[in-house]
Amino acid sequence: MAVKIALVGTGTVGGGCLDILDAHRDDFIRHYGVDLQLVRVCSRKGDTAAAHGLADIFTDDYREVIADPEAQLVVELVGGTGVARDIVAGALKAGKSVVTANKALMATCGEELFALAEAHGCELAFEASVGGGIPIIDPLKHSLIANGITSVMGIVNGTTNYMLTRMAQEGLAYEEVLADAQQRGFAEADPSADVDGIDAAAKIAILASIAFNSRVTLDDVYAEGIRRITPVDLAAARDMGYAVKLLALARRTPRGIDVRVHPTMIPLAHQMAKVDGVFNAIYVVGDAVGEAMFFGEGAGAGPAASAVMGDVVDVARRLQQGMPPAVGCTCTDELPIVPVEELSTRYYLRLTVPDRIGVLAAASQVFSDNDVSLRSVVQEGTSARDAVDLFFVTHTAVERNIRAALDELAARPDMLLAEPTVIRVEE
Amino acid sequence: MAVKIALVGTGTVGGGCLDILDAHRDDFIRHYGVDLQLVRVCSRKGDTAAAHGLADIFTDDYREVIADPEAQLVVELVGGTGVARDIVAGALKAGKSVVTANKALMATCGEELFALAEAHGCELAFEASVGGGIPIIDPLKHSLIANGITSVMGIVNGTTNYMLTRMAQEGLAYEEVLADAQQRGFAEADPSADVDGIDAAAKIAILASIAFNSRVTLDDVYAEGIRRITPVDLAAARDMGYAVKLLALARRTPRGIDVRVHPTMIPLAHQMAKVDGVFNAIYVVGDAVGEAMFFGEGAGAGPAASAVMGDVVDVARRLQQGMPPAVGCTCTDELPIVPVEELSTRYYLRLTVPDRIGVLAAASQVFSDNDVSLRSVVQEGTSARDAVDLFFVTHTAVERNIRAALDELAARPDMLLAEPTVIRVEE
Repeated sequence: MAVKIALVGTGTVGGGCLDILDAHRDDFIRHYGVDLQLVRVCSRKGDTAAAHGLADIFTDDYREVIADPEAQLVVELVGGTGVARDIVAGALKAGKSVVTANKALMATCGEELFALAEAHGCELAFEASVGGGIPIIDPLKHSLIANGITSVMGIVNGTTNYMLTRMAQEGLAYEEVLADAQQRGFAEADPSADVDGIDAAAKIAILASIAFNSRVTLDDVYAEGIRRITPVDLAAARDMGYAVKLLALARRTPRGIDVRVHPTMIPLAHQMAKVDGVFNAIYVVGDAVGEAMFFGEGAGAGPAASAVMGDVVDVARRLQQGMPPAVGCTCTDELPIVPVEELSTRYYLRLTVPDRIGVLAAASQVFSDNDVSLRSVVQEGTSARDAVDLFFVTHTAVERNIRAALDELAARPDMLLAEPTVIRVEE
Repeated sequence: MAVKIALVGTGTVGGGCLDILDAHRDDFIRHYGVDLQLVRVCSRKGDTAAAHGLADIFTDDYREVIADPEAQLVVELVGGTGVARDIVAGALKAGKSVVTANKALMATCGEELFALAEAHGCELAFEASVGGGIPIIDPLKHSLIANGITSVMGIVNGTTNYMLTRMAQEGLAYEEVLADAQQRGFAEADPSADVDGIDAAAKIAILASIAFNSRVTLDDVYAEGIRRITPVDLAAARDMGYAVKLLALARRTPRGIDVRVHPTMIPLAHQMAKVDGVFNAIYVVGDAVGEAMFFGEGAGAGPAASAVMGDVVDVARRLQQGMPPAVGCTCTDELPIVPVEELSTRYYLRLTVPDRIGVLAAASQVFSDNDVSLRSVVQEGTSARDAVDLFFVTHTAVERNIRAALDELAARPDMLLAEPTVIRVEE
């Protein structure tokens, strides 16, 4: 008996899924006994469906998909938290299992959707929501399940990793690489979700929830993007033996879950420092497995469709065999989120200040007054004649104190000529 | 209802499993509703069982475990293909599911054991047989299932990777690092399974079987070890921009499966070149996912036990819910194995020859006579006064011709002063 599938959304990833079905439907039957039959394709426009010879099962109304008594499994590739939420919730309420690539939806409405899935005996799978084609959610839920996971670190946004890599390797400015990334289709016209760390924040919320068995939502994640990073910072970091990556981190601490996204200096010798360009990687530390890293292409039609269709084959196999849904929500614990102000780490700070006698001493004094101990201070000229850059690296300091020091510096009329650059250091 | 488990083998990995049970049994209940109850521990000696307070359920006779009507799931950590085979086959015949870390067994008796599992409605899980704690078998069987996999490459033997890393970084000789590895417990007293590539061959046989849905056994894998690699070769490789790794490779080609283990030159910029020390990594290329890499600790109590207990929780969950076994054998195709003689690649060859006029020309002529086109030849002195090393790098050549050329050189009484070093080049 074929498993009847409806696909909603025929953009890049949806097209990739149709390609996989065209190429491998017979393989799925032969190798795994799973017969996937597409019964509905839904999108705003019908051209992709038509190109795949699916015009006869096309609709532009998702409510038809939800109302379709035949469809057992709905693949949601619309994205966002508006109509996508109606589609996923509607499908689950109608007793249909759902496969989605929607990180924003899972990171904001996960609890509601898991409850619906459970109430209606359906499955909700979302491997593609993090890391494109990289298997990470399934490994966390299965192979690594016997571990107490202590931390998850990810380079989970290909756009910013591509930008930081080119800025570091070619000394290009942020604006320049952003324009290039937009031209190549690696960045969107409004790049904020990527460059401000929102996309990465949704992904680490999902990973943290699974790794720590405790609900973490997008709102729980402190996020800082890469807008203030310059080639000067990347060169300074390299001189100190570090690469700068937009890292999404989640750590289990005695006080709760420490979860954040920000530019981060990581030692050049670390595996994560070598993840360049549009590649993604997720680094997991568990009490038994030690360190494990998952690396691959984080975006694009093929990788994302690989993850979506992997879920589809898996869920369809269970549907076909009449098996109950696999593991649903495992957020059994309610761990608090540690406020970012309590973070204790080392900091790199670059302040652009007027080129005058005593400025270094004055700035250093402000840090000292705020209980921030400095490890090194370097003063260097900038392209502007009357300005110098002060590069500070702190000993381990508390975020609250760093912020107080920066506020105090900003309040002085004759001190900061630009917003300071802050990069946290991970060892 | 608790799932009743028997553990056979209480060495390093078995001890690690007991540690995980001690630490996380309550977590498994709370997070996943899986209650693991150890009902039997079997080993030749009872001290580990006693140390975990399990003397009352200890036996030194594995037949008692198989005969135990209570045990639903047997964990086999004995290793090898002797008694381990009796344990696994016996357990399956008795209707018990099995979790094993035994690569040699799976790579030689996989077909027989899968048939037994299917006949008796049991599950046979073996994530720990490849790559220690790195999730790779589960991802190949689930997240990556929608891909046509085209190649799998692995650094899957930590002992040899540790040795090659130290030889490359410190210029140490093979014998020196072997002795050191033995002292640290990274290599066994008889190191042949590791240094001759047998261990890696078993692992790539398992990975190839899953990736290509076609049975590959240990005997199908051409294996060459690292005994002839010297620091001179590693330095020469580095000068050319390559790292040397003992690579286990499996490729799907139009003529069948190309599967082998040998020292391999890989570009320094490749992710796999950066996998050093006792770490393992498996690199997968699929038609949808593109490149993906899985990295982690390939050996040791914790990592291996992480993989074993991940399988145990997964299988136990299905047993507890009365679900049928997950995917069993998926070797539905019968692809031929491509003989290694037909391999077509580039080669690095180092010949130690007498230091006399014309030797380079004579050796070069032999390659030319055998249809091997040379890309570069370098002659350098050795520590011996009367010998020089000739370093050849070929253009793409056929293995059969390389072997004919080396045989012809070996047959000349005045040519080779030592066994030549052969390293295949992967781009």
